[in-house]
Amino acid sequence: MNKPYVIGVDIGGTNTVFGIVDARGQVIESDSIKTRKHTNFDDFVSELYEGVKRLLEKNEAEDKIQGIGIGAPNANYYTGEIINPPNLPWEGPVIPLADKVSKAFGGIPVAVTNDANAAALGEMTYGAARGMKDFIMITLGTGVGSGIVVNGQLVYGHDGFAGELGHLIVKRNNGRMCGCGRTGCLEAYCSATGVARTAREFLEVRTEPSTLRDLQIEDITSKDVYDAAVAGDKMAKDIFNYTGTILGEAFADMVSFTSPQAIILFGGLAKSGDLLMKPLQEAFDKSVMPVFRGKTKIILSELKESDAAVLGASALGWEAKNMA
Amino acid sequence: MNKPYVIGVDIGGTNTVFGIVDARGQVIESDSIKTRKHTNFDDFVSELYEGVKRLLEKNEAEDKIQGIGIGAPNANYYTGEIINPPNLPWEGPVIPLADKVSKAFGGIPVAVTNDANAAALGEMTYGAARGMKDFIMITLGTGVGSGIVVNGQLVYGHDGFAGELGHLIVKRNNGRMCGCGRTGCLEAYCSATGVARTAREFLEVRTEPSTLRDLQIEDITSKDVYDAAVAGDKMAKDIFNYTGTILGEAFADMVSFTSPQAIILFGGLAKSGDLLMKPLQEAFDKSVMPVFRGKTKIILSELKESDAAVLGASALGWEAKNMA
Repeated sequence: MNKPYVIGVDIGGTNTVFGIVDARGQVIESDSIKTRKHTNFDDFVSELYEGVKRLLEKNEAEDKIQGIGIGAPNANYYTGEIINPPNLPWEGPVIPLADKVSKAFGGIPVAVTNDANAAALGEMTYGAARGMKDFIMITLGTGVGSGIVVNGQLVYGHDGFAGELGHLIVKRNNGRMCGCGRTGCLEAYCSATGVARTAREFLEVRTEPSTLRDLQIEDITSKDVYDAAVAGDKMAKDIFNYTGTILGEAFADMVSFTSPQAIILFGGLAKSGDLLMKPLQEAFDKSVMPVFRGKTKIILSELKESDAAVLGASALGWEAKNMA
Repeated sequence: MNKPYVIGVDIGGTNTVFGIVDARGQVIESDSIKTRKHTNFDDFVSELYEGVKRLLEKNEAEDKIQGIGIGAPNANYYTGEIINPPNLPWEGPVIPLADKVSKAFGGIPVAVTNDANAAALGEMTYGAARGMKDFIMITLGTGVGSGIVVNGQLVYGHDGFAGELGHLIVKRNNGRMCGCGRTGCLEAYCSATGVARTAREFLEVRTEPSTLRDLQIEDITSKDVYDAAVAGDKMAKDIFNYTGTILGEAFADMVSFTSPQAIILFGGLAKSGDLLMKPLQEAFDKSVMPVFRGKTKIILSELKESDAAVLGASALGWEAKNMA
């Protein structure tokens, strides 16, 4: 018997957002708790359960849940665990996420994946990738995340950790340090923090005037660079050109890999408009292999940002029913 | 009703090899014709048909063929066509390969793919990748080809041309010209011709003695470099170090993409032993993202080289039966 709803849960570094979602991708109702309030993981799960229960009771949906989908950093689809969470308060190295949540909810099937894979699923189920069998989701936030879909399926790889396109090496010599412990990763250049780092580099190396010089150099954010560029600041525009060019060149390599129908962008930086998209598209068109030229669209997510994380995670909830 | 044999056909630039193959990967018998003898494609197909017919009659296998699998440069799995063949004598730009061969053989199902994808299928069906659901096949020949397997399926992409890993960009500045029209591709460095180009560069730029200096610089082949390195020539060894390092770094990026259980090497250059494999493995171990460290094996093909092309193509013949 099909049940009409799933629950989507997005565990972020600050907030954990959860909601009831129907098959058309409508978020019936959502709420959130503070991720870092409990250092004990069982306490976190209890509070999550209480929060979801309130939503279910209010919407008379207690018996209408097919499954629960959870997106979380470093969550592994195969094992249902969070491995070495970089930014979560619970004791690791391994947190049995799916198992504990399923038990708390009386055995409802639970599936987990990382946040970028959840975004890709959300886009495929409810957004810009509906009907696509081959596409790549790129999330441009604090870091650069990715979810790769091939033949209509997410690419998990043999260990469940595939799709780390933010860690393709884009500078082989003298590349920037990356949080992963290596140097020259895409993420070190084309994330929000990467843009801020570029700003600091440009301000130090170049001598031309810029309104960015009025700010404390250590406090500059990608938002500051965006505002300056919109106001016409030449150096700020150059920073976006630099970022978009690196991203476009990296996208060309991604196309040589899986030849996707589209690369879909999501996240704060993706909303920079032509400032980012124009140099990105130019570099991509120039760099892509001739056999793929003109075939892969670079487009923006169609999911409302406030709903996207819950929607993406919830999409996995429909799948979870089949795995129980 | 299952039939016990498939036919594998490998269309190369010089020879077209074909054979009868059983379900255990035994080549019952094989033969070949000259690819370039006929400039008219129909005449080529007629000669192929006659050649295969002789084999079938001799082995009393006329009624025992499930399907025909064909590997050919630029062959497209989805359309069954060869597109813009770079090195074949027939009038293009589009050659309806599957259609014409199937008609010539009285409607037997035919499936086609490019040579590197065929190699991956062969390895998965009969070779080193048996039982693997996620691996990458890299062919190191005149060029660098690749076949990517994800979730047990070849990655074709939305247009059938995915898996061009020989054209990942490994040098973003002042990279070598590549046959694809761009610069800095992996293939321009790590193919047999890439090794010869490296030799010419080293000989021109460096001043140290080398037995390679006894050869005509324009005629040097990767085989010459191999022979010199085996004999202890320092520069020749450096050329292999250079080649293996670039390859190992590129493999690290490939792992960030699909997290394969193994990367499998095939082709002349792959038989260079430790000369290539040692620097390759070292660069790979150093470059791979920490989360993937120690997980992906780099191994050699287990298929006999004389049989591999026919075996690989034949593996597609089993699949072709399902598409008819």
